[in-house]
Amino acid sequence: MDRGLFITFEGLDGSGKSTQIDKLRSWFEEQGLEVLVTREPGGTSVGEKIRELILDPANTDMTDMTEAYLYAACRAQLVRQSILPALSEGKIVICDRFLDSSVAYQGYGRMMGDTVGDINRPAVEGCIPDMTFLLRVTPDGGHERIEDRPLDRIEMQDMDFHQRTFHGYEEIAKKDPQRVKVIDAYGTIEEIHEQIVSEVRTLLCMDKEQS
Amino acid sequence: MDRGLFITFEGLDGSGKSTQIDKLRSWFEEQGLEVLVTREPGGTSVGEKIRELILDPANTDMTDMTEAYLYAACRAQLVRQSILPALSEGKIVICDRFLDSSVAYQGYGRMMGDTVGDINRPAVEGCIPDMTFLLRVTPDGGHERIEDRPLDRIEMQDMDFHQRTFHGYEEIAKKDPQRVKVIDAYGTIEEIHEQIVSEVRTLLCMDKEQS
Repeated sequence: MDRGLFITFEGLDGSGKSTQIDKLRSWFEEQGLEVLVTREPGGTSVGEKIRELILDPANTDMTDMTEAYLYAACRAQLVRQSILPALSEGKIVICDRFLDSSVAYQGYGRMMGDTVGDINRPAVEGCIPDMTFLLRVTPDGGHERIEDRPLDRIEMQDMDFHQRTFHGYEEIAKKDPQRVKVIDAYGTIEEIHEQIVSEVRTLLCMDKEQS
Repeated sequence: MDRGLFITFEGLDGSGKSTQIDKLRSWFEEQGLEVLVTREPGGTSVGEKIRELILDPANTDMTDMTEAYLYAACRAQLVRQSILPALSEGKIVICDRFLDSSVAYQGYGRMMGDTVGDINRPAVEGCIPDMTFLLRVTPDGGHERIEDRPLDRIEMQDMDFHQRTFHGYEEIAKKDPQRVKVIDAYGTIEEIHEQIVSEVRTLLCMDKEQS
């Protein structure tokens, strides 16, 4: 491949993204491909410092708009410092959350609407995932799965917020079914992994036919 | 006054903004007016944490776009948490740097152009200063005045950056002479203070005539 492949994982907290990302990384490596796994917010040295600010439960007075800008700041750094260089080296980039998270959590969850997309346009600079896996759990289902640890500032939002975010993800998937593959996250780890690999195989074959 | 007055100070580092802000605050207080003095980046608890990130010389790999978003994040927080509430209580708000700094330093200095204005539009949400004092020193003149302390990440940029920023301020003043008052910062502290007070008196009288 001349340019790598950019794959993102989306879904509510507790939807099993990390597990599936690990398994997909191994699968790609078994095919002899180089993989960069990263995450949002964070993924770079500067980004991880911004992540701490965003998630710190002490920042109770952070406005929604501030939060949206901090996510965009992380994203701008990640795209330029990690994602674009890795893609241009032909690597597979797997990112745990990306722009869709901002649209779902800030646009729908915080009810900021299209402003979120406007703010983020310069941050992503046309860096759109080739494929996105939306691991679908309902808000109550997701929270049950979060390990026994203190909740961060986003997780501790009320159930209405998480319901709106869930709805946001459904809308995102509806608008862009070609890119966003919705996966029922209540299956077994292996079942989910197989569905993901099947989609990735299709994507890779399509790429081959086009070139 | 039904709504307070929003005054900002701009200029290169070392232009004497802090001294003049202190003196203007005292002048307003002598008139029996309540004053809030704040600054960018920072000014709020969340904003001061973002300020640390922006100015920390350790963050050498921060991209220009990330920096622009972090300034916008600070600004979004300051406008909503401090400036708008104070103005609606009828206070005078004096801010050390505001949107013009982003346009001058990122738009011109970093050569990001109009993207800076686009990014910041939702952050300021129509909160435009009633008057802005641009204390004019040339880039070399400003640096001489910075006290004997380590330079922060912005101050340590090369001279071309500071020259472009200087030029940016000139352009901002040219485009909006009604709001932006250019003051020669090589005068004595008292001379500069008197010019500022004279402009403020004019502004207050105009307000009185209009109401």
